[in-house]
Amino acid sequence: MKKKYLLTPGPTPLPPEVMSALAKPIIHHRTAEYSALFVEVNNGLKSLFQTAEDVFTFASSGTGAMEASVVNLLSPKDKVIMVEAGKFGERWLELGNTYGLDVIPVHVQWGKAVESSLIEKLLKENPDAKAVFVTLCETSTGVKTDIKTIAAITAKTNAVLVVDAISGLGAMELKTDEWGVDVVVSGSQKGMMLPPGLAFISLSKKAQKMLETSTLPKYYLNLKAYKKALDKSDTPYTPAISLTVALTEALKLINDEGLENVLKRHAVMAEATRQAVKALGLEVFASSPADAVTSVKLPEGMDGSKLYKTMKDELGVQAAGGQGDLKGKILRIAHLGYMDASDVILGISALEVALGKIGYPVKMGEGVKAAQKVLYQINS
Amino acid sequence: MKKKYLLTPGPTPLPPEVMSALAKPIIHHRTAEYSALFVEVNNGLKSLFQTAEDVFTFASSGTGAMEASVVNLLSPKDKVIMVEAGKFGERWLELGNTYGLDVIPVHVQWGKAVESSLIEKLLKENPDAKAVFVTLCETSTGVKTDIKTIAAITAKTNAVLVVDAISGLGAMELKTDEWGVDVVVSGSQKGMMLPPGLAFISLSKKAQKMLETSTLPKYYLNLKAYKKALDKSDTPYTPAISLTVALTEALKLINDEGLENVLKRHAVMAEATRQAVKALGLEVFASSPADAVTSVKLPEGMDGSKLYKTMKDELGVQAAGGQGDLKGKILRIAHLGYMDASDVILGISALEVALGKIGYPVKMGEGVKAAQKVLYQINS
Repeated sequence: MKKKYLLTPGPTPLPPEVMSALAKPIIHHRTAEYSALFVEVNNGLKSLFQTAEDVFTFASSGTGAMEASVVNLLSPKDKVIMVEAGKFGERWLELGNTYGLDVIPVHVQWGKAVESSLIEKLLKENPDAKAVFVTLCETSTGVKTDIKTIAAITAKTNAVLVVDAISGLGAMELKTDEWGVDVVVSGSQKGMMLPPGLAFISLSKKAQKMLETSTLPKYYLNLKAYKKALDKSDTPYTPAISLTVALTEALKLINDEGLENVLKRHAVMAEATRQAVKALGLEVFASSPADAVTSVKLPEGMDGSKLYKTMKDELGVQAAGGQGDLKGKILRIAHLGYMDASDVILGISALEVALGKIGYPVKMGEGVKAAQKVLYQINS
Repeated sequence: MKKKYLLTPGPTPLPPEVMSALAKPIIHHRTAEYSALFVEVNNGLKSLFQTAEDVFTFASSGTGAMEASVVNLLSPKDKVIMVEAGKFGERWLELGNTYGLDVIPVHVQWGKAVESSLIEKLLKENPDAKAVFVTLCETSTGVKTDIKTIAAITAKTNAVLVVDAISGLGAMELKTDEWGVDVVVSGSQKGMMLPPGLAFISLSKKAQKMLETSTLPKYYLNLKAYKKALDKSDTPYTPAISLTVALTEALKLINDEGLENVLKRHAVMAEATRQAVKALGLEVFASSPADAVTSVKLPEGMDGSKLYKTMKDELGVQAAGGQGDLKGKILRIAHLGYMDASDVILGISALEVALGKIGYPVKMGEGVKAAQKVLYQINS
């Protein structure tokens, strides 16, 4: 018997309440029973997204929600500023190019965060820019973007701020309405503790106005259809019923813990992981680290895939490797969703043991000790 | 205690094996374990779709797969023939208009099937037509389209045949390769016995060629990205893992029963339902009835919603009412997916009892007797 632990930044482990809900007999979506449940879900989503506006849900990967933000707000040749600081920022650029937008790309060195002042400068130089696209937590690098400052900048312009919060939502602070974030997109398999398959998008009043002028073609992702249906607690197409039923359970768990405590738990797990990494003589790759996932910079010459495989196959702990140019160069350890202090401890322990097994000079227990200090406030 | 029976044409009931699979701990999709499972799924889908070509799977409602067939094969102003014989045919027209196609609409009276000779005539008059869009089982009317004859017609032209088989696949014969059907789209919550949330599309070699020339914009639904990933047993975006794991179980059930037997079971359930309806003095609404769902024409003056509600709320049996102009005028009883002879019996019995309760002169037991005769070959 060997237990398996999934410490990846999506999919994340499922709480038992969610797994049980997924196993329930299916109910029909055009019934009073489902409508009541959908109302409950929509209220819970508003709290989680920290917005008074509607949050729209549809069956797709998070990428579908990213695409929805592009095709519902914009028209061909619209000027947009798109930040690319990793693999998921690249996706914004690909979407912008696919739909014939006039893209001003902001390439940021992977591992760094975009400078807010650069966004401010670009918006001044391009007063006709319609939108700024950024990523709250760039999952590929573990970098956090300073959304609050950027939102304060975009709020003074005609441009809307679109935030990919797929891996950040429910793990890192994102005060949508208070900060003036216009569009938040997310997915189910990260902080929301569900299997992948649901995508979400919220729109500020400023963004809602753009629905009226956008001419890019859309059908399945047409938010006007979702809005019309939502006003009757309905969906335009058959929803992913089982996932939505399970979402009620996940939202209950978040509500019971309290969003503030959920975010604090993530912050503490993240800090513990970072301190552990440093105690082991390694570096955190991100200059501005996110609280959803910690990227560990591996020493020159270390075989990253060997480290990953040792953790996974010998110790039962699955972290994530690097993507694109970072393949083999970083290890990403998630502290995201249904995870707590014990997950951090077993993850750091597995990292220590695997480092030892592949021949890296590691003082066993030092990482765990540093994590314990943060997680349990033990100072001896 | 009152048990509930779902006799709707989607979602359909889940087999216990599927429910258990949905409740499993999540696994990561970028692992050897998931790749092996995905290979198994893809092979099973080829058998179910009766094609040697790839079947692509993505997280969305069936409508997403319909849209994928349009945006991946066509370019603006392309001439297409779209058959509208019900609510789901309307969806083809909406998609065609959304994407600026030159649509030749074929409006068919709801309850009737399109005449194959009309398709032949239109293709002769429009040799530049790129595609013909039809619906195997028009769920809103219970009508079956003669795909075999239409495929023989399109095969002789440059046009591809695109079939919405969302509610028909796994319930009615569709020999994709043998008949020369170019594109088959489907969804998970009908004959595939899964919750909604997965959509599927298969493409013939003739259709695959059109991927190279299509200029309509697409990103999440871009099949070239799915093809590139599929060749490595991967997906371009995070797949709906739980639903895909459950799909392996559903495909096993279909394989164990044998597709031929699955289709025969549906044909027998459908014939039993039709005979029962007639024995009760009612009419089958569809001139060419489908084997996935039977639409019952309600007598003038009968309150269809009252009949539906009596069956659902008093007898625990949920059928479906009419959609659009057919609201209150028909009742649709599904015999689709994880249903067998006993479901037909309890459904017909509930129909008889509900008819009696709302004051329709019904000879109790006559419908059940007619169904028994077909289901169990009892002739006394």
